[in-house]
Amino acid sequence: MLSLSLFIHMGEREMTAKVLGYGALQAKAKLAPYHFERRAPRVDDVVIEILYCGVCHSDLHHVYGDWATRYPIVPGHEIIGRVTQVGDNVTKFKSGDLVGVGCMVDSCQHCEPCDHGLEQYCEEGNTLTYNSLDKHDHMPTFGGYSENIIVSDKFVLKIPQNMELSSAAPLLCAGITTWSPLKHWKVNQNSRVAVVGLGGLGHMAIKLAKGLGAEVTLFTRSKGKEQDAVRLGADHVILSTDENQMQSAKNRFDLIIDTVPSIHDLNPYIPTLTLDGTIVLVGYLGDLNPFLNTAPMVMGRKSVAGSLIGGIAETQEMLDFCAKHHITSDVEMIDIQYIDKAYERMLKSDVKYRFVIDMASLKKDK
Amino acid sequence: MLSLSLFIHMGEREMTAKVLGYGALQAKAKLAPYHFERRAPRVDDVVIEILYCGVCHSDLHHVYGDWATRYPIVPGHEIIGRVTQVGDNVTKFKSGDLVGVGCMVDSCQHCEPCDHGLEQYCEEGNTLTYNSLDKHDHMPTFGGYSENIIVSDKFVLKIPQNMELSSAAPLLCAGITTWSPLKHWKVNQNSRVAVVGLGGLGHMAIKLAKGLGAEVTLFTRSKGKEQDAVRLGADHVILSTDENQMQSAKNRFDLIIDTVPSIHDLNPYIPTLTLDGTIVLVGYLGDLNPFLNTAPMVMGRKSVAGSLIGGIAETQEMLDFCAKHHITSDVEMIDIQYIDKAYERMLKSDVKYRFVIDMASLKKDK
Repeated sequence: MLSLSLFIHMGEREMTAKVLGYGALQAKAKLAPYHFERRAPRVDDVVIEILYCGVCHSDLHHVYGDWATRYPIVPGHEIIGRVTQVGDNVTKFKSGDLVGVGCMVDSCQHCEPCDHGLEQYCEEGNTLTYNSLDKHDHMPTFGGYSENIIVSDKFVLKIPQNMELSSAAPLLCAGITTWSPLKHWKVNQNSRVAVVGLGGLGHMAIKLAKGLGAEVTLFTRSKGKEQDAVRLGADHVILSTDENQMQSAKNRFDLIIDTVPSIHDLNPYIPTLTLDGTIVLVGYLGDLNPFLNTAPMVMGRKSVAGSLIGGIAETQEMLDFCAKHHITSDVEMIDIQYIDKAYERMLKSDVKYRFVIDMASLKKDK
Repeated sequence: MLSLSLFIHMGEREMTAKVLGYGALQAKAKLAPYHFERRAPRVDDVVIEILYCGVCHSDLHHVYGDWATRYPIVPGHEIIGRVTQVGDNVTKFKSGDLVGVGCMVDSCQHCEPCDHGLEQYCEEGNTLTYNSLDKHDHMPTFGGYSENIIVSDKFVLKIPQNMELSSAAPLLCAGITTWSPLKHWKVNQNSRVAVVGLGGLGHMAIKLAKGLGAEVTLFTRSKGKEQDAVRLGADHVILSTDENQMQSAKNRFDLIIDTVPSIHDLNPYIPTLTLDGTIVLVGYLGDLNPFLNTAPMVMGRKSVAGSLIGGIAETQEMLDFCAKHHITSDVEMIDIQYIDKAYERMLKSDVKYRFVIDMASLKKDK
């Protein structure tokens, strides 16, 4: 819990606080205990003691330096915690509340996307939970592999009362990333949805699409995932390497959520879309290699789209929906000291389906 | 005009009629006068004397054998004509009516797309105006470079009274191909639409988008098209090879209609789409080479889609809209004997903006 006694004076700057987290000082460095500063709470801030933090693929990419990273870095953007303090202007939250923080902690709040609750597409660029600079004091943002975090109330989510906390953390990224396109493309009980890839995102896509009443199919390249997919809610499993199975799925899906984070061939999936169907990429930023062929898109008015996490209002909507439908993530709970090993296992897809750090374990490094 | 005296008996088959057109007997052959058979009119058929026929790029590709072609071929699917006879069950048309025929002459009429007036996406495959086999008697279909055509009344369009006939023919393909996505993606007076390519399709896209009240921009690689684009209705012209101009168009367009029929790079256009914007390909069937990069699609929920001509009901809607807004195509009228030269000029984009054959010229070959 953040103690005011920890605040130290930094010359001209506001009082800041030293916080313990797990960070990497440079590319390729292993994550290790790291002390860093958090800002003094502002009037709209919520101070949150972190209880659980999910481990996302993007954490790994940032730490490894695969993506543009501003070192030192403290990852983590699937945060569940308890409010310990609120700024004078905060009315939505009070000390003791259970809350969540996802991928963003700020945005311009006045562009058109922000006005529509789509802060993830903020035209001035949103402030990410880690690896960004705060818009006001220009301090680097540090994520959830840490004791606490300080976030403007507009970017803090309420965790519904009956929600299982330890498995809720991945909803803040894996959950909303798949929920947002399901809602944007209006999935309901008349929809046929397919999911490509059964990882952290894919298993949430199945649960959420099923929760919305859709008929859900998993595309997978690996035999043996059928049982698990059905347990998660899939009605059908299609082995995408089996030409006959793919052929029988022609013109079938209104929406395909493609969660694969690495380069892969989209062409086999396009014919399985129905007229006006869309395949939406939520996990892959890069070239569509091999070349995407337009013929089946033109012949059936089919679309290839992208979608990025989700807005704050729809994240709250998703959390409330999950509480109502008893949906959380399938997690493997780890101590923070296990994080490097967890990254190694994630690279081999050896997790069902999300690692979550029990942040109580951080006390061992005190 | 089709004379009943021309009907001849063909053994077990219905009475058919010999018709003069321009056809190609094999790939690479030049188009030349060619006599072929048309079926005897069925009860739902409309017999149409052809007055004008537009010349579409796909005619050229079929004749040259670039696409799968069933020879002999008589091209032409932008047909304006006058009704000379109707079958017993036809009530919508009568002798003397001015009518149009586009790319399709039949479809299954019972699949979901057909039920929704989207015969171009018929699940059983529609019957094209040429280079198809009729679903009933399995005779090859021959197109509009001919004296007359016989078409089921469901696929015959009414030409509004005040429409300029000689320049209306291209509406039946170039017009509807651009109209259909404009309507599907709900373009209106609040929309910002861009058009890629200024040819037969592109110049119709500008006119129709402007007619719908949108702000219209032309993307072009060639300087010097500005004046013509503005005359056609464009509000802005962007030279797509000018990095500064492209940069200034960032996040601007709700819909981009890409009319380019050949391989080209889509990547420069994606950032010019607004949040939830779509670039729709209407002229290119093939690989997206260079690789399409997904990053700007994910970061702004942008889509790449395809669209194929349009349904019969929306073709009629488009014709009525064009009549009301005094929109037709910019055409260069030619005699049928000029057709090979016209194809050569089309390959060099040397036409503003569509050749239309005055079918009266066919009489010279009688």
